[in-house]
Amino acid sequence: MKNRIITISREFGSGGRTIGKAVAEALGIPCYDNELLKEIAVESGFNEKYVEDAGEYAPGGFLASAFSHQAPGPNNADYLWKIQYRLITELAEKGSCVIVGRCADYILRDKADCLRVFIHADMAFRAERIVSIYGERKESPEERIKDKDKRRAAYHRFYTDMKWGKAQNYDITLNSGTLGIDKCVEIIESLY
Amino acid sequence: MKNRIITISREFGSGGRTIGKAVAEALGIPCYDNELLKEIAVESGFNEKYVEDAGEYAPGGFLASAFSHQAPGPNNADYLWKIQYRLITELAEKGSCVIVGRCADYILRDKADCLRVFIHADMAFRAERIVSIYGERKESPEERIKDKDKRRAAYHRFYTDMKWGKAQNYDITLNSGTLGIDKCVEIIESLY
Repeated sequence: MKNRIITISREFGSGGRTIGKAVAEALGIPCYDNELLKEIAVESGFNEKYVEDAGEYAPGGFLASAFSHQAPGPNNADYLWKIQYRLITELAEKGSCVIVGRCADYILRDKADCLRVFIHADMAFRAERIVSIYGERKESPEERIKDKDKRRAAYHRFYTDMKWGKAQNYDITLNSGTLGIDKCVEIIESLY
Repeated sequence: MKNRIITISREFGSGGRTIGKAVAEALGIPCYDNELLKEIAVESGFNEKYVEDAGEYAPGGFLASAFSHQAPGPNNADYLWKIQYRLITELAEKGSCVIVGRCADYILRDKADCLRVFIHADMAFRAERIVSIYGERKESPEERIKDKDKRRAAYHRFYTDMKWGKAQNYDITLNSGTLGIDKCVEIIESLY
């Protein structure tokens, strides 16, 4: 029998990770996010920060290769993708869990009984949230959010060919800004 | 104080209308759908079937006008849109209700305290559903669904300039095929 997995994709600053952790705790199952990054980092021999960044950058296409000194063919991002693909598959085989980000919805589409969740919120809600969690930076919170979302969407598109944030790709999408983080947790928990 | 309105956009055959009616009944508030069409029809002097069709066709653009004998400028669809806009605004001012379709989410965006819902489901679920509800037709259920969805998306885009089915345009989107109609009703009711 296939394990029940909850995959959470999320806009930067929408509270997707917080929601994932809370759902996992309420259900008594593990939640993989930074933990997963660490495993990938160890396996790949790259450092953790590098792995974290690579998960949000789509590899450059033909032009990027043509105008750089990079050799054509698989690059570091592709290498990491393979490790990530295998790790997520193994985690899902091991038992029920919550997995935040990392295209787990796509990787597990035929391998597990997934509840596919997408969390988003409006810019004002997210801007306030990232400043309170990650602190001020040189760039405005709005710039940081736009940049991060763009990278996540491109990465998702590159490796899955599915549109990030398109309602039809998920079982449920929730606006954490209007519904509230707690209500999102409650709904997802009730669907498990 | 603004009235609380639930707007439901939906893919053809996903059960959005059924869900809307059930939510309204559970909450003891009215649900407008065919009822709304009838009012529009009466006001416009068009017959009901015509109004129903016009609500799913985006008016032809420049080329359509250039190659037809139709006079440029506002057409019947635009005229109906204005009546619909006014009627939905009035309904929302009158009291809390559920409104299915007709771009109510867009029309009421600044006028009411809206819970914006989108219902979708995979093709197989919807195909089975429309045959059991509307019966067999000459075209396959898949063809009917694709055609209807295309029209709804184009209509929505034309009048609202918002993308139909994009998660970020809604407070919640639900896959009625995987979650089940009853669960969708329960979740929406709990959010009111």
